[in-house]
Amino acid sequence: MSALLESYAAGTWFRASDDGDPLLDAATGEEVARISAKGLDLTAMAEHARTVGGPAIRALTFHERAAILKQLAGFLNEDKDELYALSARTGATKRDSMVDIDGGFGTVFVYASKGAKQLPAGTVIVDGDDEPVGKNGVFAGRHIYTSRPGIAVQINAFNFPTWGMLEKFAPAFLAGLPSIVKPASQTAYLTEAVVRKIVASGILPEGSLQLLCGSAGALLDVLDEQDSVAFTGSAHTAGVLRSNPAVQNRGVRLQVEADSLNCSILGPDVEPGSAEFDLFVKGVVTEMTVKAGQKCTAIRRAIVPAAKADAVAEAISAKLAKITVGNPAHDDVRMGALASLGQRDEVRKAIEAISASADVVFGSADKVDLIDADAERGAFLSPVLLKARPGAVEAHDVEPFGPVSTLLSYSSVEDAIALAARGKGSLAGSLVTADPAVARSVVRGLAPWHGRILVLDAVAAPDNTGHGTPLPTLVHGGPGRAGGGEELGGIRGVLHHMQRTAIQGSPAMLDAITGE
Amino acid sequence: MSALLESYAAGTWFRASDDGDPLLDAATGEEVARISAKGLDLTAMAEHARTVGGPAIRALTFHERAAILKQLAGFLNEDKDELYALSARTGATKRDSMVDIDGGFGTVFVYASKGAKQLPAGTVIVDGDDEPVGKNGVFAGRHIYTSRPGIAVQINAFNFPTWGMLEKFAPAFLAGLPSIVKPASQTAYLTEAVVRKIVASGILPEGSLQLLCGSAGALLDVLDEQDSVAFTGSAHTAGVLRSNPAVQNRGVRLQVEADSLNCSILGPDVEPGSAEFDLFVKGVVTEMTVKAGQKCTAIRRAIVPAAKADAVAEAISAKLAKITVGNPAHDDVRMGALASLGQRDEVRKAIEAISASADVVFGSADKVDLIDADAERGAFLSPVLLKARPGAVEAHDVEPFGPVSTLLSYSSVEDAIALAARGKGSLAGSLVTADPAVARSVVRGLAPWHGRILVLDAVAAPDNTGHGTPLPTLVHGGPGRAGGGEELGGIRGVLHHMQRTAIQGSPAMLDAITGE
Repeated sequence: MSALLESYAAGTWFRASDDGDPLLDAATGEEVARISAKGLDLTAMAEHARTVGGPAIRALTFHERAAILKQLAGFLNEDKDELYALSARTGATKRDSMVDIDGGFGTVFVYASKGAKQLPAGTVIVDGDDEPVGKNGVFAGRHIYTSRPGIAVQINAFNFPTWGMLEKFAPAFLAGLPSIVKPASQTAYLTEAVVRKIVASGILPEGSLQLLCGSAGALLDVLDEQDSVAFTGSAHTAGVLRSNPAVQNRGVRLQVEADSLNCSILGPDVEPGSAEFDLFVKGVVTEMTVKAGQKCTAIRRAIVPAAKADAVAEAISAKLAKITVGNPAHDDVRMGALASLGQRDEVRKAIEAISASADVVFGSADKVDLIDADAERGAFLSPVLLKARPGAVEAHDVEPFGPVSTLLSYSSVEDAIALAARGKGSLAGSLVTADPAVARSVVRGLAPWHGRILVLDAVAAPDNTGHGTPLPTLVHGGPGRAGGGEELGGIRGVLHHMQRTAIQGSPAMLDAITGE
Repeated sequence: MSALLESYAAGTWFRASDDGDPLLDAATGEEVARISAKGLDLTAMAEHARTVGGPAIRALTFHERAAILKQLAGFLNEDKDELYALSARTGATKRDSMVDIDGGFGTVFVYASKGAKQLPAGTVIVDGDDEPVGKNGVFAGRHIYTSRPGIAVQINAFNFPTWGMLEKFAPAFLAGLPSIVKPASQTAYLTEAVVRKIVASGILPEGSLQLLCGSAGALLDVLDEQDSVAFTGSAHTAGVLRSNPAVQNRGVRLQVEADSLNCSILGPDVEPGSAEFDLFVKGVVTEMTVKAGQKCTAIRRAIVPAAKADAVAEAISAKLAKITVGNPAHDDVRMGALASLGQRDEVRKAIEAISASADVVFGSADKVDLIDADAERGAFLSPVLLKARPGAVEAHDVEPFGPVSTLLSYSSVEDAIALAARGKGSLAGSLVTADPAVARSVVRGLAPWHGRILVLDAVAAPDNTGHGTPLPTLVHGGPGRAGGGEELGGIRGVLHHMQRTAIQGSPAMLDAITGE
């Protein structure tokens, strides 16, 4: 039997009182680790965060917290081999692993830099200008952000075991909050390995970061009005969390980042053979295949001018045909496995559902050629491109969380915007066009439905970070189906963890309160 | 039978198909009006907002919207006599009515001014600086706010039938959203009268403002991911709204502003006889008696140094003894009636509950001397001051929504902060002190628990706007028990209605999108 993952709780590594459930290698089906939180004292974890971690962080200035994050990012970047090896077992290729591991460490580094440069020297942030009241100059209003004396609980998805933890942890730490991280079980062994490195480093004040490996169980029961929960995952689980009494009645803040049916739109100006046409095709293929399409930001709907739908389908199919699938640790493999056989079943079901009003034009839900891998034991799936029939419904509602995308045709720019909106709110959208007028009208139409929109042309291409890549400096989240939340965006993500308060008094008194 | 209030729905005044329920004069018990929404087509209202009101507002620039608000505020200010007369029937004195009516119109005016001065000329707001990406200068990120193509539903409390509507409407209108206003039934006749004036003026684009008089019924059923609900009222109703499927599963944004157990703290430095001592006493008495204490921001807990508790009790009692109660339209009356006999019953129950660990030191829940009024027919109540016994519990949990406050003793500044925090989150707090060091430590301790904090001393007093007065320029809301929401705060309250989106592309493309 493989190792039982442990939780880092109340300053010590906790081992469950049972043998736990097995976690299987996504590519080979071998057991990687076991997981259980049986016997874990959640109340003690919350108490530890409140009485040890929180006060320790809040005793530091923003700049001191930033310096700690910088040191942490540097330390984590030193030796990543063990982490890459574990990451491969989640089904990730080396490129996928870099997105998760290097991307996670890079996010910590960016927050260190933002904290040092954009936050004040003390522990209180002044927001905006003073609002003078009255005519004597003796009374004014000022807005401040202060640290909440609470806990930041983070419930993460299985697809980014490292980045998912760190993109939530870094802003919370900078904001003065201790974190309790609950990774998705399926890939928790990688998260646990990262936390072991962090704890061993001794860089963070004790209590800043606790880890819950296993079922979150009654974690929300120990939270109250100064605490928050940041959740990344399915809309279904988000609904369950929203109905929890902690959120309903006890004032616990809930931030949701849910999978969405993101789109990429090909501008009406783009002709086959142009640089923009190739950028569009490349973008769709990249988003279908990186992390085997298991990204909440991946392009699920490719929305193209009706007259060019066949050309796009051909071009995407030609590129997909070159995507090698198999053992993610193998050098010749471009796309690894889904996280589990269960996930593959879910994606197959989604493809079937979408097929009610769409036709598969590339790949198959049931057949895939593999390099150095076994299609029975590993959660492999071929990239699958569908093309929606007129009036298609399911492509707007059903999310295949894998290497699957659906082509949809539009008749006008207004129609393209309306089709995008049928996703009911997305994390990321993209538009490929070389026409500024198209960009203006489409982006203004898409913006209320999106947390982030990429506009791509040949000019921007050299530094393009890609449709599906959240950046620490830009907000990540989206309205409606995408959960209604917002993370990252530099200091914006820090402020979401703090309390904004208007203070009123004499200018001298306000200065006494907010001065360093 | 008195007049049946009508709803302004889909461009016409709608009259219910039944006789409705009676609304009684708070002071005399006479019927003022009747209310019913029976037969009202909520789907048609939502459709009208989406297809008529929203597009009409969003066709205007921020500055054009601001100009309309300015014109509206000026028009409303012209003739208020009818409104004051109706306001008196809610139990409000002339002073109370000015807070509601003039305060409401003033808020519209402030938003007109803020919109003209602090919003750009077009319809898109750029947030913060660009985030350059890459080394070629060809790719960057920019954050923008755009108008959501949705509806702003506003569910208001009975205590401010005018201000409550307008403080929510003005920011929503500026943000580009049409409003559907649902006033609390008890005082809806005043709201209806204001809306009749607004509609008759023809100043607003049709569909910008609709009025629902009567039960909100299934209003949330017709909302979806671009819509929002702003609610002011009880924590109980807030919980019901949070559990609605529109909020749970359909991405409807919910903003809650709930009653809270606000405190005022007397600094340890303040001695009886000083200017600050008098300011503290005056503040408590004002908050107990304005609107007969029916303000969500009123001081429910007066937290004072133990050694000075008796002196404070005496001083407050002496001032309360001078408060005349009775017919709110009578010139000699300082405090009018509660909104209804039912409300009086609720407050009496709350006083009884708090009395489990506190003693009444002024007034009585059952007896009141009245000027020109009948204690049986009108919802009159004496101001009641309680003094908590050591270890009191109920004063921190039970909210008497009337002219009632409880004195609590503290032993140290830390103790005072801890007592304040037992309110579990408040809209407004105040601290009376002349010592900047006390202000700094107490305000920093209180801030995470409060949406607004007033620091009062003799210097600030001449322009002091008062503990309980939300200002359009400062945020109004609070964490935890106070609902976790935020309104007003100038442009901050506009941005809450909009969608923030990160856009990425070449600098030229970003300029094409966000330029005017």
